[in-house]
Amino acid sequence: MKQNNLLVGQSGGPTCAINATLAGILQGAAREFPQSRIYGMLHGIVGVLEDRLTDLTELSRNPKTLDLLRVTPAAALGSCRHRLNSDPAHPDYDLLLERFRQYGIGTVFYIGGNDSMDTVAKLAPRAAREGICVLGVPKTIDNDLTGTDHTPGFGSAAKYVATSLSEIACDCAVYQTRAVTVTEVMGRDAGWLTAAAGLPRLIGEPTADLIYLPETPFRFESFLEEVENVFSQKPSVTVAVSEGIRFADGTYVGADNRQRMDAFGHVQLAGAANVLTDFLSCRLGCKTRGIELNLPQRCAAHLLSETDISEAVRIGQAAVAVARAGQSGQMLSFRRVSDIPYTVEIDTVPAEQVANRVRAVPEEWLAPAGEVSPQLLMQIAPLIRGEVSLPRKDGLPVHFLLEREIK
Amino acid sequence: MKQNNLLVGQSGGPTCAINATLAGILQGAAREFPQSRIYGMLHGIVGVLEDRLTDLTELSRNPKTLDLLRVTPAAALGSCRHRLNSDPAHPDYDLLLERFRQYGIGTVFYIGGNDSMDTVAKLAPRAAREGICVLGVPKTIDNDLTGTDHTPGFGSAAKYVATSLSEIACDCAVYQTRAVTVTEVMGRDAGWLTAAAGLPRLIGEPTADLIYLPETPFRFESFLEEVENVFSQKPSVTVAVSEGIRFADGTYVGADNRQRMDAFGHVQLAGAANVLTDFLSCRLGCKTRGIELNLPQRCAAHLLSETDISEAVRIGQAAVAVARAGQSGQMLSFRRVSDIPYTVEIDTVPAEQVANRVRAVPEEWLAPAGEVSPQLLMQIAPLIRGEVSLPRKDGLPVHFLLEREIK
Repeated sequence: MKQNNLLVGQSGGPTCAINATLAGILQGAAREFPQSRIYGMLHGIVGVLEDRLTDLTELSRNPKTLDLLRVTPAAALGSCRHRLNSDPAHPDYDLLLERFRQYGIGTVFYIGGNDSMDTVAKLAPRAAREGICVLGVPKTIDNDLTGTDHTPGFGSAAKYVATSLSEIACDCAVYQTRAVTVTEVMGRDAGWLTAAAGLPRLIGEPTADLIYLPETPFRFESFLEEVENVFSQKPSVTVAVSEGIRFADGTYVGADNRQRMDAFGHVQLAGAANVLTDFLSCRLGCKTRGIELNLPQRCAAHLLSETDISEAVRIGQAAVAVARAGQSGQMLSFRRVSDIPYTVEIDTVPAEQVANRVRAVPEEWLAPAGEVSPQLLMQIAPLIRGEVSLPRKDGLPVHFLLEREIK
Repeated sequence: MKQNNLLVGQSGGPTCAINATLAGILQGAAREFPQSRIYGMLHGIVGVLEDRLTDLTELSRNPKTLDLLRVTPAAALGSCRHRLNSDPAHPDYDLLLERFRQYGIGTVFYIGGNDSMDTVAKLAPRAAREGICVLGVPKTIDNDLTGTDHTPGFGSAAKYVATSLSEIACDCAVYQTRAVTVTEVMGRDAGWLTAAAGLPRLIGEPTADLIYLPETPFRFESFLEEVENVFSQKPSVTVAVSEGIRFADGTYVGADNRQRMDAFGHVQLAGAANVLTDFLSCRLGCKTRGIELNLPQRCAAHLLSETDISEAVRIGQAAVAVARAGQSGQMLSFRRVSDIPYTVEIDTVPAEQVANRVRAVPEEWLAPAGEVSPQLLMQIAPLIRGEVSLPRKDGLPVHFLLEREIK
């Protein structure tokens, strides 16, 4: 049996664009591999190990269904957080290759972040020996992958953060009482998403007065001064902080005493906003409120960036073209050609150069604590542009649900 | 000097529709009182006491500015939480009446909730002696005012809650790990807004599996059973709870040991979701996540209900017509004429019948703990219908800011 079929999986945290990339891959597959079947891994690489594959071929030929998939948040195929064994002789690799043979798989697409690129980097050399191509396609709201200008999913999350912070600033301005509102934004190791809170300033709209990224060491006493400085101008102070803000010694501000690790050894944080509001209540005696934007920042598909979604589809389609050309072990990436007009080209980067690494905001784009540099804002601004109108019924969004599509 | 001018103020917690009502009043004023000036109270009744009024007459003649005001969240004039003294002989009443004379005010509109209707009810009899009409116009995301079918601001908040819970359900379904996500919704004393989490079910979309309103006594052991029952069908359980859920003895589940009161003597709550996730982690040992929808549910104007906003404008316009007819001490209200097709008429109710009271979800519309009755959902469903497209720049909403409009 010729191994000409395709396999696609989604891995890591959901975003608003990971399904758009899946839609792009399905479209590309239907066009470039019209004789092949395309399978989906249910729950990522774990689904391959456990022989839970689903046939997406019919679906890939249905433009209406792909349109719905394109604007559905989360991960339609299910996701996983699973690290392949570091020993290339581990039996899991034999099992995966056996599965690929069983389904006649010649190409594997894995949509994910830096942990998922670890899977691509480990699997590709072994698969190559059997003539199977393994490609990574990026996604993460954190925008922290190396080797790419930005990541699909980030633009929509950034738009959500910028819009929400602007609305929160409107809300908090109504009272005369001295109050501080601290909003916590996702991004453990990189401040890209938190920086998006500054975007409304570019168009003269209200937003957080102070913005703290993890790249700049946090100091309580400077923070207090910065808050008091805003208080000298108005009664309501709004602050945006990354969940990952840390002191000069690297300790997370939001780390509590019950630190837990996830499967990848990342410390689980919950609480920078709480720590800061407790601190301010204690030191200033003013009213405080902590807000965690939480899951909506990665799943609020009712507020998509058209730029983000169309790029996510495009990078999925491009992955199929790269597979056609026989490349393997690569992650698709964006290269920014120009800022004005905003133009990107699609490129590739070896997955092993992306795996397990983090791209923080580079030092030349950082501003003093509490501020965001105009250069950083200009970098992010094009990624949130354009609106996407959702299919709705009775005022609510309609979603793609795999169980409805695959009988 | 003839007292023919108008005065409008906003009071209590902001919503996404309180500015739409202000826009309606301004439009109505321009049309029905073309010879009069219309003033705005800055920060509600406190602004009158402190002589901080702003002239909105020019603005009321500018349709483009009113269009922007109509879709801007929060309270453009600023708000307050101030209770007028219960003694009708208190000097504040003399001061208010003096101020009305000073600005030639013949009509006062006060947009707010049940606390603001207390202000209307107290002020109206005294103002009537001087031929001044005082009218209340409802607003609150909680939908808990008596004497009206529903309140402006509720529909948009309900749409935000329903949409967010549906998106959160999509997000939480991606992993195979057993996990419970508990989302906390505003509404201290009434479950209307939390019930909106059930709306996606009407169109077959995913949303919270279990929904808890404050009207039904909460029991930890039943909750545990209900969660385990969902776990028997799928690995991820999502729950929506009102911040105001309480035990049979009336104690708030989310009350912590540091109970504080606001100026109106309401207990400040923060934590039903936290209490429930701690309980489940302890009893089931599963992964849990608490989400507080927080301020965005009352200020996320990027997701307005067209029904809500157009009704909010309409009730504002109607208030001016009622003032023209010389009624005073009344709150404008909605009377539902029919469910299908959804039709409401505008009516009035004495403000003293609304002041300081709460309209909980009536018993005949309640379901067993964890569920929402179809009757209640059908009641809410029409209020979230229709989309509003926002003025945007570079992908972000543009807001009405008073300081930009009034030089």
